[in-house]
Amino acid sequence: MGQEAGSTRMSIAPASGKLAVLLPGLGAVATTLIGGVEAVKRGLAKPIGSLTQMGTIRLGKRTEHRSPLIRELVPLASLEDLCFGGWDVFPDSAFDSAAHAKVIEPALLEQVRAPLEAIRPMAAVFSPEYVKRLHGTHVKQAPTKRALGEALREDIRRFLKENGCSRAVMVWCASTEIYIERSAVHASLAAFEKGLDENDPAIAPSMIYAWAALKEGVPFANGAPNLTVDVPAIVELARKQRLPIAGKDFKTGQTLMKTVIAPMLKARMLGLVGWFSTNILGNRDGEVLDDPGSFKTKEVSKLSVLEHILQPHLYPDLYGHFDHKVSIHYYRPRGDNKEGWDNIDIAGWLGYPMQIKVNFLCRDSILAAPVALDLALFMDLAARAGLSGIQEWLSFYFKSPMVAEGLYPEHDLFIQLQKLKNTLRHLAGEELITHLGLDYYEH
Amino acid sequence: MGQEAGSTRMSIAPASGKLAVLLPGLGAVATTLIGGVEAVKRGLAKPIGSLTQMGTIRLGKRTEHRSPLIRELVPLASLEDLCFGGWDVFPDSAFDSAAHAKVIEPALLEQVRAPLEAIRPMAAVFSPEYVKRLHGTHVKQAPTKRALGEALREDIRRFLKENGCSRAVMVWCASTEIYIERSAVHASLAAFEKGLDENDPAIAPSMIYAWAALKEGVPFANGAPNLTVDVPAIVELARKQRLPIAGKDFKTGQTLMKTVIAPMLKARMLGLVGWFSTNILGNRDGEVLDDPGSFKTKEVSKLSVLEHILQPHLYPDLYGHFDHKVSIHYYRPRGDNKEGWDNIDIAGWLGYPMQIKVNFLCRDSILAAPVALDLALFMDLAARAGLSGIQEWLSFYFKSPMVAEGLYPEHDLFIQLQKLKNTLRHLAGEELITHLGLDYYEH
Amino acid sequence: MGQEAGSTRMSIAPASGKLAVLLPGLGAVATTLIGGVEAVKRGLAKPIGSLTQMGTIRLGKRTEHRSPLIRELVPLASLEDLCFGGWDVFPDSAFDSAAHAKVIEPALLEQVRAPLEAIRPMAAVFSPEYVKRLHGTHVKQAPTKRALGEALREDIRRFLKENGCSRAVMVWCASTEIYIERSAVHASLAAFEKGLDENDPAIAPSMIYAWAALKEGVPFANGAPNLTVDVPAIVELARKQRLPIAGKDFKTGQTLMKTVIAPMLKARMLGLVGWFSTNILGNRDGEVLDDPGSFKTKEVSKLSVLEHILQPHLYPDLYGHFDHKVSIHYYRPRGDNKEGWDNIDIAGWLGYPMQIKVNFLCRDSILAAPVALDLALFMDLAARAGLSGIQEWLSFYFKSPMVAEGLYPEHDLFIQLQKLKNTLRHLAGEELITHLGLDYYEH
Amino acid sequence: MGQEAGSTRMSIAPASGKLAVLLPGLGAVATTLIGGVEAVKRGLAKPIGSLTQMGTIRLGKRTEHRSPLIRELVPLASLEDLCFGGWDVFPDSAFDSAAHAKVIEPALLEQVRAPLEAIRPMAAVFSPEYVKRLHGTHVKQAPTKRALGEALREDIRRFLKENGCSRAVMVWCASTEIYIERSAVHASLAAFEKGLDENDPAIAPSMIYAWAALKEGVPFANGAPNLTVDVPAIVELARKQRLPIAGKDFKTGQTLMKTVIAPMLKARMLGLVGWFSTNILGNRDGEVLDDPGSFKTKEVSKLSVLEHILQPHLYPDLYGHFDHKVSIHYYRPRGDNKEGWDNIDIAGWLGYPMQIKVNFLCRDSILAAPVALDLALFMDLAARAGLSGIQEWLSFYFKSPMVAEGLYPEHDLFIQLQKLKNTLRHLAGEELITHLGLDYYEH
Repeated sequence: MGQEAGSTRMSIAPASGKLAVLLPGLGAVATTLIGGVEAVKRGLAKPIGSLTQMGTIRLGKRTEHRSPLIRELVPLASLEDLCFGGWDVFPDSAFDSAAHAKVIEPALLEQVRAPLEAIRPMAAVFSPEYVKRLHGTHVKQAPTKRALGEALREDIRRFLKENGCSRAVMVWCASTEIYIERSAVHASLAAFEKGLDENDPAIAPSMIYAWAALKEGVPFANGAPNLTVDVPAIVELARKQRLPIAGKDFKTGQTLMKTVIAPMLKARMLGLVGWFSTNILGNRDGEVLDDPGSFKTKEVSKLSVLEHILQPHLYPDLYGHFDHKVSIHYYRPRGDNKEGWDNIDIAGWLGYPMQIKVNFLCRDSILAAPVALDLALFMDLAARAGLSGIQEWLSFYFKSPMVAEGLYPEHDLFIQLQKLKNTLRHLAGEELITHLGLDYYEH
Repeated sequence: MGQEAGSTRMSIAPASGKLAVLLPGLGAVATTLIGGVEAVKRGLAKPIGSLTQMGTIRLGKRTEHRSPLIRELVPLASLEDLCFGGWDVFPDSAFDSAAHAKVIEPALLEQVRAPLEAIRPMAAVFSPEYVKRLHGTHVKQAPTKRALGEALREDIRRFLKENGCSRAVMVWCASTEIYIERSAVHASLAAFEKGLDENDPAIAPSMIYAWAALKEGVPFANGAPNLTVDVPAIVELARKQRLPIAGKDFKTGQTLMKTVIAPMLKARMLGLVGWFSTNILGNRDGEVLDDPGSFKTKEVSKLSVLEHILQPHLYPDLYGHFDHKVSIHYYRPRGDNKEGWDNIDIAGWLGYPMQIKVNFLCRDSILAAPVALDLALFMDLAARAGLSGIQEWLSFYFKSPMVAEGLYPEHDLFIQLQKLKNTLRHLAGEELITHLGLDYYEH
Repeated sequence: MGQEAGSTRMSIAPASGKLAVLLPGLGAVATTLIGGVEAVKRGLAKPIGSLTQMGTIRLGKRTEHRSPLIRELVPLASLEDLCFGGWDVFPDSAFDSAAHAKVIEPALLEQVRAPLEAIRPMAAVFSPEYVKRLHGTHVKQAPTKRALGEALREDIRRFLKENGCSRAVMVWCASTEIYIERSAVHASLAAFEKGLDENDPAIAPSMIYAWAALKEGVPFANGAPNLTVDVPAIVELARKQRLPIAGKDFKTGQTLMKTVIAPMLKARMLGLVGWFSTNILGNRDGEVLDDPGSFKTKEVSKLSVLEHILQPHLYPDLYGHFDHKVSIHYYRPRGDNKEGWDNIDIAGWLGYPMQIKVNFLCRDSILAAPVALDLALFMDLAARAGLSGIQEWLSFYFKSPMVAEGLYPEHDLFIQLQKLKNTLRHLAGEELITHLGLDYYEH
Repeated sequence: MGQEAGSTRMSIAPASGKLAVLLPGLGAVATTLIGGVEAVKRGLAKPIGSLTQMGTIRLGKRTEHRSPLIRELVPLASLEDLCFGGWDVFPDSAFDSAAHAKVIEPALLEQVRAPLEAIRPMAAVFSPEYVKRLHGTHVKQAPTKRALGEALREDIRRFLKENGCSRAVMVWCASTEIYIERSAVHASLAAFEKGLDENDPAIAPSMIYAWAALKEGVPFANGAPNLTVDVPAIVELARKQRLPIAGKDFKTGQTLMKTVIAPMLKARMLGLVGWFSTNILGNRDGEVLDDPGSFKTKEVSKLSVLEHILQPHLYPDLYGHFDHKVSIHYYRPRGDNKEGWDNIDIAGWLGYPMQIKVNFLCRDSILAAPVALDLALFMDLAARAGLSGIQEWLSFYFKSPMVAEGLYPEHDLFIQLQKLKNTLRHLAGEELITHLGLDYYEH
């Protein structure tokens, strides 16, 4: 096991005071997160799936046997200090919304009824032209997009004050918007703010939330495949405010598997002939994705994964010609359970064909909730450590990680994990790990 | 992307002259390897699955865009310089054996008939008490195990001389032997050699091959789950001879997938409740494994994987109580195609259950042949670079990697790959890669 | 749609009074049956899976549109008139046993607590040598098997009297016993009763139950693969008593699918090359089957299916050489859920290979309970209609249907169903259905 | 085993002379049929999948043990007497087309090269507006659809004469056309023939073939889901000509499984909550179905199956509310291999959920070729037996069987088989079979 020369511990502000976790979209994911945190605080359940709560990190040489919890290595906000709030197009409380989502079992949900009933969403910034299958009523009205943004800023300030929070993070947990391409209005902060005034149609609601958050000094992470913060204008704003941003699209079921199996193929130099992915899901997310506009946004997010992992330019014989198809179907009986079926056609020695089939019977919100929690806590850490702009080390959590101009996104889950852990080691002044292991041959 | 301070290039003897690749077991795997190399040399097929032939390695900072082929970075023997030989309990030529194995298609096989017909196995060291379902006749007779070993040494010397080879490697491609536990006879080289004289039953044929190889200055890699070189006596001999050894059990189908999916679970802190694996295969390997003695050897090799990856001692809530079952069934219709079905029961946020099912329609020899090739070439490289003893950096290729006393085996395919690649970088005097990526936050 | 000349309605005694349903084995299946019937009676759930409760039957020409419920066509006992009782090796009430089995959800179970708590098992006739993995204490003691049988007869008489029942049926819902072959003691009633006196080891506990039932005028259906009533001695007794018997082994998950897919292959003249079936289950049934003796009984029951359906003697080119493997694994995480994975290798036009994979995520007791209910009601009907001996028309419900000497069992689910329905039509004096449909061509 | 009163053997004209088998569409299915028949005639392969070639039929009581081959019971044309011809939009010979389709292996194809090279398609009646993804050049030109029909009639007469055939059958093996609904032009023969003169767009090319065939005294079977003969005008023409017609859409992979599993659910009164079917295929058929117009035709054909089998009006609690989704994806790597993945959500006792997953790795043309062969031979039999109009007894072969007005189609494969076999028994004057089996209870 190899190590580098030690880094020096970076200066990180302590996690003192309460942290507001502001969630646009109080649906299945958000209520599973909130209800789950309340259950964990009461000792009713474990925060499984959360690296910040359960993960350890190996330090030093492997013979030292040092593996503290991550939250013992770096100063993260504790669950006790989180204060949840959010916006939604329906006025239901977090309890009613969770009951409707049917993710948390009734008996457990009943035990966290009080804190969830206390959470009532603020009126959302929303327009049905961006999410065709959704029809909400609990919506802000204002003459311009800038005015909507200012209303959100006012919401944030009021929330912090009323709840006595010292700082906040925002994590987008709302629906997938229609597909929007980068255009002139996204090219600079000036152009963007002019667009806010002029109600530019290329400014989707999620962008207004991001703008408002950053203006208020709040880091923003994007759990949907929407463009949102992945435009120069918002990156510019984040840099200017010295705030972290991250996105996009929580990496949960099928894509999570894809970013594990594709690296295996490349590790072993097995060729890829084709990859067919189909998904069935029956919750609100599925309904929204039944609209071709929203589906395209999701599809683009899901399709890019393989090409970046497999590097066809380096391996034309192996990855130069594969077919990749992704389909998503709204299938009511599945409810919040999401099921993927992947058929992977691979080529081995001499080009001989083989097949891998993966059937993943997963649960959307169960996989997404701990991701949202980790992002909230790590974004807050990043802000306190002075890491601003795109948080590449959090690529681990995203289907379609944001990248700096000129670089490619890293999709390989295991490289992403090493990036995340070495970043934490670096923040804590610990040696980085390379797995060299020269000790084996020194005798 | 982060890097360490540069290493200095190690001194590696050049790969000059012909390399003998000596294979105990001229069955499906060996003939697929040999026939395939001949096909590749003639431009009839690609050496897919082989890191030494097709793999690249990223060097320096990611903005440098340096990704040479591995075989351009370190001096490997070329396919043109390989000279194949072997032993088998049947006297069939490599061509007849390949035809019987039905892995390489008849039309392709016909095109490499000449070189395969020229390869006739030397008589094997074999005893049916170690492989119950196999009954061969092309077998050496001698009064003691030491005498059998000396006969193998004589075979090696003659082969090198007759074929004008400058050096050799041996890769075990024969059957799984019955389960043997480490005992006193394996504890030291002296005890082992006494056991050779006294025909100790705990010395299996594969150990005699390993002993003969190392005595003749030939590195030995073990493709089966047999104990073979994984005993102190042979490690001692390898050290003494300053030769590399490696094992055990080629990591191909189901276990390959397991060492990919289990790291994903741990990366994401998803709990494991149970893992049920079943395999069907119909070749000679399957017949051999139908014997409970041979199956136990294989089962022990396959079962250890999860525990080492998941570290139950660090994560008792996640991995403290999972059930792991592995079954293998001889199913004639499958032939050399091997099929795995895995059912994986996992736990997510709050303990909610999910399932992953993987059906891998793979081909045993197609997956194993490039592994055997890579091992032959990397073992030769290791010998020339002066790396002796257990080659931990080649854990990547094994179901049950050998480890130094007091350390645990690394089963995670992606850590194994990083170990392998950073070792190559180290050998070549290139910087190691840590994926830190601080450039993102320096502005 | 064709019809035969009408039959005349047979004379069937009415279903008046209460019917005792006596169940050896008050485990998961029995309590799911009892709890379910109570839930159905209260309108809390539907008796899905039960032909007697939900099935209709088409009568007359298809243009007549006559499809009454089966229970309107023939006089079946109503659920209100059922009175459940049983024996078990544990003294737990049906409520406690159901709670332990974890099949019925807690909320529903609570609503039927009272009637289930009232059912306490009578002490069982049991010996661990017939079911190795089971260790119960609530067991009858007596010097001879005849004395044990007499004790059961006394139980039956007392139960009928105490509960005011006019008649009874017995349905075996207990564990799979070890494999026993027919021997001399089973050859005649005289030999059998002599064996009862002499404690012949070839008389398993289930046979003692069957003997006792028939002696008391109670029909007996066998839900396990045990030999039980499938021996000449018991058939002789049933004939003598003019009582129906039926067996063996409830056809539920994987075999149910098998008796559907195999007929499809034969219908379409698709060849079978191999069929590999594996099962995972984690309840008491799974534990019992982990014992090789009990597994063999089950395996024999499961293996015979394909040969009888596919008729290799008629189709040697298609079905003369297939491999059939069945394995069952105890896998704790599955609980009462039973999961099957089948790989079916078939041959089409010109012998070209194709594959079918079936993954059945089923629930053992949920599938078995309505089968047990139907058998109870149909056996009672048969008794009242004077159908004695083997009830071939109930083959529909069994993995391994009993047959008359010289005939072969019918395993094809659809022929079984037609047999069942035409028998009901016959009992009711309705025309049989042949699906000829000459009306199409008469113009 | 029950039987009806015996029928009297019907008068059937003998199968003397050569039978022309005329195939619109000389693609993968047709060439697999033709090449296969040639291989079978030479003893190179078995006609697996063909009931006419390999099927037996049980006659009389089961104790009689009479099970002759079907082709021994009724007079079918022999393979030696078949003479294949066809039309296609590409001028390639049947050999070139088969080579392109890659269904028959090269080595086998080479052995039937001569007869396949001799078959050159006649120019097709075709218009790209009915099959959007197909662009052929070997196409007839004429001012009206009637003139195109007359050209086809001339083709038929010439083919019969040149090949010395005594009679012919036509089986549509060409592509799926766009979705067309029944309209006025299809309502009567007079309207239809007026439409031919006026180039009515609702008359698709397949209808012109059917009209030409029937005009020439040639039975017509429709292997695609196109409307074709399923309109009153063509039924009227068939009746008038006293000729059989049949359709539509060869029942091969996924739907074949569906018509087997759905009857099982109904047999056992298991509820259906949802059925999600996805298909991947990579041949010309797949390309054609990538067009939404052609897909709709196929989708309608595939969707109707479940409702007819499950009879929601009789079983509202079980089948009143299920979701049924079917998707088809063009996936190039699959080639002519067609793969289906079905997820079936079912409900058992008390409504408890279970799931069945079926993965069918099938081969489109391998399944379809014997169906086309059987239809050719049975349609010829029907014509000689004087069965005219819709051949309901051949529903067994179709995804979407044609029905008489006022009746519903029978989709259950096993009822279809019984219908077919009892029709054959009826034609041969044998007793029909009801599986009653009263012998069991008569003692």
